[in-house]
Amino acid sequence: MGKKKVIFYHAGCPVCRTAEEAVLELIDRNKYDIQVIHLGQDKSRIQEAENYGVKSVPALVMDNKVFHINFGASIEEVKAG
Amino acid sequence: MGKKKVIFYHAGCPVCRTAEEAVLELIDRNKYDIQVIHLGQDKSRIQEAENYGVKSVPALVMDNKVFHINFGASIEEVKAG
Repeated sequence: MGKKKVIFYHAGCPVCRTAEEAVLELIDRNKYDIQVIHLGQDKSRIQEAENYGVKSVPALVMDNKVFHINFGASIEEVKAG
Repeated sequence: MGKKKVIFYHAGCPVCRTAEEAVLELIDRNKYDIQVIHLGQDKSRIQEAENYGVKSVPALVMDNKVFHINFGASIEEVKAG
């Protein structure tokens, strides 16, 4: 009985931080492991995020579904940044 | 020690339903009570949602902070619908 995995992608922006706080606070840790990925610092994960369908950060991926939470920066901006 | 309240505003759209499933699944019910409001069916709550800063649905409000989750419909469309 492993926990399910959710991935939170962000880029350190203020909108990202506010969303990260909420996500870490709201999500049931007994059921989910949350992996937090800073795409600005870990550009090797950008392709993975794009493969999930992430268009902007902050975004949460769960069960191969993407939930963009407000708007901090586009993936293109993260690539260029 | 009451639970904290979060409000999920939606309008019954497909994007709303997918987000609702995720929200209901992810959020720690031991810590949070989730109120689900269908603004299309309960138009009297639209003003309240706007006061929180909700611009589109689906959206989650927690601690007076608004998290728009993907994009289903604008508040203006919900008013007109």
